[in-house]
Amino acid sequence: MHLSDQEIARASKMRPIVQIAEKLGIPEEDIRPYGKYVAKLPLKLINEEKIKGKKLILVTAITPTKAGEGKTTASIGLAEGLNKIGVKTAVVIREPSLGPVFGMKGGAAGGGYAQVLPMESINLHFTGDFAAIEKAHNLLAALLDNHIHNQKNTLNIDPRKIVWKRVMDMNERALRDVVIGLGGSAQGVPRESGFDITAASEVMAALCLSKDLMDLKEKLGNIIVGFTYQDEPVRAHQLKAQGAMAALLKHTIMPNLVQTIEGNPAIIHGGPFANIAQGSNSIIATKMGLSLADYVVTEAGFASDLGGEKFLDLKCQYGKLKPNAVVIVATIRALKSHAGIPFDDLKIPNPEAVRAGLPNLEKHIENMKHFMLVPVIAINRFATDSGEEIEEVRKFCQGLRVKAALCDAWERGGEGAIELAETVKEAAESGKSNFTPLYDFDWGIEQKIETVARKIYGAADVEYSVKAKQQLKLFRKIGLDKLPVCIAKTQYSLSDDPNLINRPSGFTIKIREFDIAAGAGFIIPIAGTIMRMPGLPSKPAAENIDIDADGNITGLF
Amino acid sequence: MHLSDQEIARASKMRPIVQIAEKLGIPEEDIRPYGKYVAKLPLKLINEEKIKGKKLILVTAITPTKAGEGKTTASIGLAEGLNKIGVKTAVVIREPSLGPVFGMKGGAAGGGYAQVLPMESINLHFTGDFAAIEKAHNLLAALLDNHIHNQKNTLNIDPRKIVWKRVMDMNERALRDVVIGLGGSAQGVPRESGFDITAASEVMAALCLSKDLMDLKEKLGNIIVGFTYQDEPVRAHQLKAQGAMAALLKHTIMPNLVQTIEGNPAIIHGGPFANIAQGSNSIIATKMGLSLADYVVTEAGFASDLGGEKFLDLKCQYGKLKPNAVVIVATIRALKSHAGIPFDDLKIPNPEAVRAGLPNLEKHIENMKHFMLVPVIAINRFATDSGEEIEEVRKFCQGLRVKAALCDAWERGGEGAIELAETVKEAAESGKSNFTPLYDFDWGIEQKIETVARKIYGAADVEYSVKAKQQLKLFRKIGLDKLPVCIAKTQYSLSDDPNLINRPSGFTIKIREFDIAAGAGFIIPIAGTIMRMPGLPSKPAAENIDIDADGNITGLF
Repeated sequence: MHLSDQEIARASKMRPIVQIAEKLGIPEEDIRPYGKYVAKLPLKLINEEKIKGKKLILVTAITPTKAGEGKTTASIGLAEGLNKIGVKTAVVIREPSLGPVFGMKGGAAGGGYAQVLPMESINLHFTGDFAAIEKAHNLLAALLDNHIHNQKNTLNIDPRKIVWKRVMDMNERALRDVVIGLGGSAQGVPRESGFDITAASEVMAALCLSKDLMDLKEKLGNIIVGFTYQDEPVRAHQLKAQGAMAALLKHTIMPNLVQTIEGNPAIIHGGPFANIAQGSNSIIATKMGLSLADYVVTEAGFASDLGGEKFLDLKCQYGKLKPNAVVIVATIRALKSHAGIPFDDLKIPNPEAVRAGLPNLEKHIENMKHFMLVPVIAINRFATDSGEEIEEVRKFCQGLRVKAALCDAWERGGEGAIELAETVKEAAESGKSNFTPLYDFDWGIEQKIETVARKIYGAADVEYSVKAKQQLKLFRKIGLDKLPVCIAKTQYSLSDDPNLINRPSGFTIKIREFDIAAGAGFIIPIAGTIMRMPGLPSKPAAENIDIDADGNITGLF
Repeated sequence: MHLSDQEIARASKMRPIVQIAEKLGIPEEDIRPYGKYVAKLPLKLINEEKIKGKKLILVTAITPTKAGEGKTTASIGLAEGLNKIGVKTAVVIREPSLGPVFGMKGGAAGGGYAQVLPMESINLHFTGDFAAIEKAHNLLAALLDNHIHNQKNTLNIDPRKIVWKRVMDMNERALRDVVIGLGGSAQGVPRESGFDITAASEVMAALCLSKDLMDLKEKLGNIIVGFTYQDEPVRAHQLKAQGAMAALLKHTIMPNLVQTIEGNPAIIHGGPFANIAQGSNSIIATKMGLSLADYVVTEAGFASDLGGEKFLDLKCQYGKLKPNAVVIVATIRALKSHAGIPFDDLKIPNPEAVRAGLPNLEKHIENMKHFMLVPVIAINRFATDSGEEIEEVRKFCQGLRVKAALCDAWERGGEGAIELAETVKEAAESGKSNFTPLYDFDWGIEQKIETVARKIYGAADVEYSVKAKQQLKLFRKIGLDKLPVCIAKTQYSLSDDPNLINRPSGFTIKIREFDIAAGAGFIIPIAGTIMRMPGLPSKPAAENIDIDADGNITGLF
């Protein structure tokens, strides 16, 4: 019988974090401990000179399905595998949100024998980063409402045009749409507002795109909280908010060091959404990893059209990063899903269905080639996969002259990822990748959107609503048109229609409206309905979580 | 020129927290570090055998005025003074809330040369305790609204009778009264609700009255979140919330160890309000201090009629604690305030006004005698106090056969509190205190309220509104009448009218209604208007807070 992720985590012997730091050449006095197994790392460990010549490996995936792809598991497994073949590697990933912990899926820090530890701490509060981001975000909201109520709105803010909501790291359906400021003239000015989940906060996005504390403070000051009656943007610095917000984030800006099950370094920092934000860990953490190890394995949320594209166009351009190879994670189950096989039948071997689902993988391979990157396919193994099915994928990749390797890290840890590690190492060292972003920031907004939509999504056309067209005019007027675009759309399809699985074509991307993240440094064209605040399911995971007298937590996975 | 509190704090040389732990006989492997200067302490360090024979000193104060009393400063100073005269002492106090940090008064961790360090960390996030309490509280709210929306309200909860709000550690006027669940049938059930500040959370009160994690989990399960259409109480355990809530508080239940400016141990843990809750640090922290040091100096919020009475009746009865002496902090300025002297004239020597304000002090002395405690008066010195004014207080105390001592810790640290320390030591070791609570929990609710109102407030009578009378009937029906009472009233008067300063008499305490804290273990008779969510002032302190490239924070004080 298989052990649960939590049982595996608990049975693993952790090393004191000072030993993990030592592996990276960090002296004990430089780390800021949080208990014995977690530490924050000072930004002075980032060394641009050392980064040169290091290898950055991006892990992305095919289009997500209910079947699951295991991208985090594959990333951690790949890092274990690389360390096993003698390559000094750090895995650098996002911090989990509390929302899913209590909601649908329980904790998230890899799975099986490819996990980061201490799993419980990472999933519950960790080093307080999400809480600090939440506080900084909500302080700005409090200052904003206080300005209108108590400072007589000298900034002339139109309460109907406030775009800054509040955030809470919780699946909180009931807070999506609220009316605040009720109760009479002593309680503020009534207005419609709402709460997003903390991962969707622009403060999170800004933190993850900052190069240091002063850069972060500047980004926070540039946040647009709303507009005046004359449609002039009102920014956080006009509320004198950025100093206190940055002070709240003093330690949050430091990346967190933990360990994998096999005692290799893992750096976990920041967790922005991959639809309305960039969907990958902080630039600071990636650079920290590259400064301290020879290889960094990192991942981006959802598939290559969402987190992948944003990693490459936004994060790499802002952070001046150049990936050396990219891994596309695919599973036999997910490929069969893309062929339309129902969830309950996915365990039945069906090579033909695998073949029918391969066009999805093909598109993601093409996408990475648009960025001039050499892709490696990781077939993330499940026990129900048949040899014939796996052979289908291998043959297909051979036909495209793309390397493929099995990844069995969930079952066997680094040992199960050695083939993948060797393939990735070869690809990274081949020098065949010559990373080139898809667009320059100074292109027009429509040109940027259309380039992503046509090249990456495979769209035939892009349409803008009347509202979106008006916003485009405003953006040009107030000088936001030179920002990169972070297109928000469903993760379940390459198109903006979640029902169009596999590799759709001929579709039109419809831009309904734009959100602004002027502080973090991008604008968000919204294609479809985007959820910024999830709800709890009818059986919340929280109901099964418990703790005993010795502090052992159960039910997290 | 005087240095600011922040300048004094920054100029102080801190010792590594392992050295402070060592002073208390705690080996390094037993502490859970949060950076180099803060650590959490495991509950196994509590030792009931060791507590016997140790001395517990409560610090309370006269009725607060705008002039300020400096109770925390006096508590820290007294602990420094006791250590200076060779008594191994720990000061055990509450954690500050972020609300005041960004609102009116800036940070709070003592003042002048009587501070706890690291001041910035203590005031900003600290070890994440407030954030964890907030999350546990709000998880219960999310589960509650999700139950009504998604689980078809099988518990039959009347949405109009939900008493569980949400919390945020922020001065957030605009969130006091809100309507949630708007936006249509996918977004939940619309209803009126609101946010309290986190210090007002029942989870905070429960944590601070718990003896261990299992006791806390039970208390959390007993929280009453609302009532059914048939007026049956609905508790958190019916929503299966207590396990996940307790898991979130796994580390929060551990007290935090920091240091005073003079390198003595300070334990800081929990921060409940002193009007709607018990207003003092956790029972766990107090017992931890008594287990590790010979003397514990602790304080309770506001004056003897609020935090003082609740410390003695609630906390001491629940925690089986017996204070050995009590310090009543008074200032010349505050006494003159009670005589009606305007704020701007308080610096002018006026012995007659001091004399006229002394009845307030006299009442607080009487109050402590009702508990069979020996009081010591600490005259917390300000530069503008004249010798003649101080002499007035000394003479008055002599007349009552009560010891008084100057406290000049703000200016001179422990050196300035030696007289006070010696006086307190003598009182504690005299054996003259024989602590007796004012009432037994099994008295009737009205009897408990009237005893406190008449004996401690000096009221002539107690009146109940029609609503309060109905609630009393309900409490008897559902068995809440054996809980202690935690009366919520203004801190600015011994009565329930903030305008009645000094020592009012002949007044009636009007109980408007009751709140319930059935999980934490008390009911809250509300006399007057109680603010559970402060607002930001027109010039929020946040506007002046800043941080530089080296991480130096300014404007916190």
